[in-house]
Amino acid sequence: MKKLILDLDTGIDDTLAMSLAMASPEVELIGIIGTYGNVYMEQGLRNDLAVTDLFGKEVKVYRGLEHALSKGSFEVMEISSFIHGKNGIGECQIPDSEREEEEIGGIDFLIGAAHKFKDDLIYVATGPLTNLASALQKDPSISGLIGRVVFMGGALTVPGNVSDWSEANISQDPEAADFVVRHIDATMIGLDVTLQTLLTTRETARWREVGTKRGRFLADVTDYYIKAYEVTAPGLGGCGLHDPLAVGVAIDPGLVECIPINLMVETESQLRGRTIGDLSRLSDPVKRTKVAVRVEKERFLDMLVSRLSSLAA
Amino acid sequence: MKKLILDLDTGIDDTLAMSLAMASPEVELIGIIGTYGNVYMEQGLRNDLAVTDLFGKEVKVYRGLEHALSKGSFEVMEISSFIHGKNGIGECQIPDSEREEEEIGGIDFLIGAAHKFKDDLIYVATGPLTNLASALQKDPSISGLIGRVVFMGGALTVPGNVSDWSEANISQDPEAADFVVRHIDATMIGLDVTLQTLLTTRETARWREVGTKRGRFLADVTDYYIKAYEVTAPGLGGCGLHDPLAVGVAIDPGLVECIPINLMVETESQLRGRTIGDLSRLSDPVKRTKVAVRVEKERFLDMLVSRLSSLAA
Repeated sequence: MKKLILDLDTGIDDTLAMSLAMASPEVELIGIIGTYGNVYMEQGLRNDLAVTDLFGKEVKVYRGLEHALSKGSFEVMEISSFIHGKNGIGECQIPDSEREEEEIGGIDFLIGAAHKFKDDLIYVATGPLTNLASALQKDPSISGLIGRVVFMGGALTVPGNVSDWSEANISQDPEAADFVVRHIDATMIGLDVTLQTLLTTRETARWREVGTKRGRFLADVTDYYIKAYEVTAPGLGGCGLHDPLAVGVAIDPGLVECIPINLMVETESQLRGRTIGDLSRLSDPVKRTKVAVRVEKERFLDMLVSRLSSLAA
Repeated sequence: MKKLILDLDTGIDDTLAMSLAMASPEVELIGIIGTYGNVYMEQGLRNDLAVTDLFGKEVKVYRGLEHALSKGSFEVMEISSFIHGKNGIGECQIPDSEREEEEIGGIDFLIGAAHKFKDDLIYVATGPLTNLASALQKDPSISGLIGRVVFMGGALTVPGNVSDWSEANISQDPEAADFVVRHIDATMIGLDVTLQTLLTTRETARWREVGTKRGRFLADVTDYYIKAYEVTAPGLGGCGLHDPLAVGVAIDPGLVECIPINLMVETESQLRGRTIGDLSRLSDPVKRTKVAVRVEKERFLDMLVSRLSSLAA
């Protein structure tokens, strides 16, 4: 079975991504690395432990880096707290875990797993790419080892969400993202496709109907997220399934159609944080990144709703 | 046989585009509409008549609009004169035609041809989209009539060339371009692919070796363009075949791979002139635009070089 590592800033859609991973028989979730973004890393680690506990899975949780490579600190944006709740899980109350995060740090855990599992390792990042960039800088050889890398972030053929040109995860650490797309083959699940995968309260009702604490939790956190979307993106008609789609594609790459491209992330220009083709590698026949531009949304939605229903049962 | 209308701001690569059209047995070039951009429209009309004469083809030439929809005038940019020469054809001297442009204007010619030839009509624009937008505004019904529309312009997955986000043709008249991509199905041949199709003096030498006035002309104008590229894009190793690729794709759509998308052109924001996916139509299953993202560059280069060699003979 493939081994899966998630790198999460948990976050509501990170919670759904984690749940989808736990509900998927194709992969074994061997660890979660914490990062900052939707929440402070401390809160994310707490949520990772509590949510895996809630579903009866003792997934190991590892501490990652707390802020961008080029910065000395990190502050949660107001809009993040509005969308995910201050506690990251829509103000839902679930018990703290009695477990703690592992002693070994997330960067070293990732490097070790890459050497141990090689092609059988799948790595999915749903927050800033700081941890992955750091691991690649510490041990460049992992670039040729990890079997599959999928990240949620960026916007190639649509505007950004924190600015007209930049998506939230990438904009948190453009230097890390630029390093990643230049140094490892990866699939980018950006706003290009995630804004096409919409979940509504019709689907969350199915989780609630399961009648368990787990089902209610999944429905409650997601409804919080959907309500926030009604304010921030009133025309959309649901919430974007950003992070779960990255896990979905990690399990089943056929869910999306991609264009192969050598990508860069702007770090210097006025358009800091933009994901865009790198002209200097435009004619290089070897393409580092696959950018998803089409998604089988019905099939993915079915996968997510039915697997999480089973998980909640 | 398919009927072809070209809408040109002639221009060196427009000259190559026009030559490719004249050299292609699959299409009958029934008219050229003049526009502004690389040169003033007067100069473009003059070039269209002179170049078609040089190749012994009495193609009719029609006057288009002289400036952007939202502007009262047009000035040639210094960089355009540098790249194409002040006379648009690399300061090459060829005789003025004894013919003149047609009495009927380009907009009415296009509308008439759409109604007459319908699905058999191919329209290719290699400059600003002012003429096509005006024709669509004057007679919206032509949107459902014209068989195939291809335009050279825009940049979806790579940066622009007049700014980090905007390509030259689109930036001349963003309002017209925005109107076009919202109102007619079209194939966009942008910098995404044209910067992958490079011509060098090795290929132009083949035209010179034909030993005719026509061959020398093709080689001389193109060498002027390649020299300008050595200054403006020193790393590229040749000149971008922007406009001829649009004609190539009009004749053989299989030369490129496209992604279907509902595009918009920014007119209000800081990123005026950017071609980007329209979020409000992201989930609309009907996609207006096909954006070329991959090109069979060897096959296209062979097509262009061999057809223009034959034309020169």
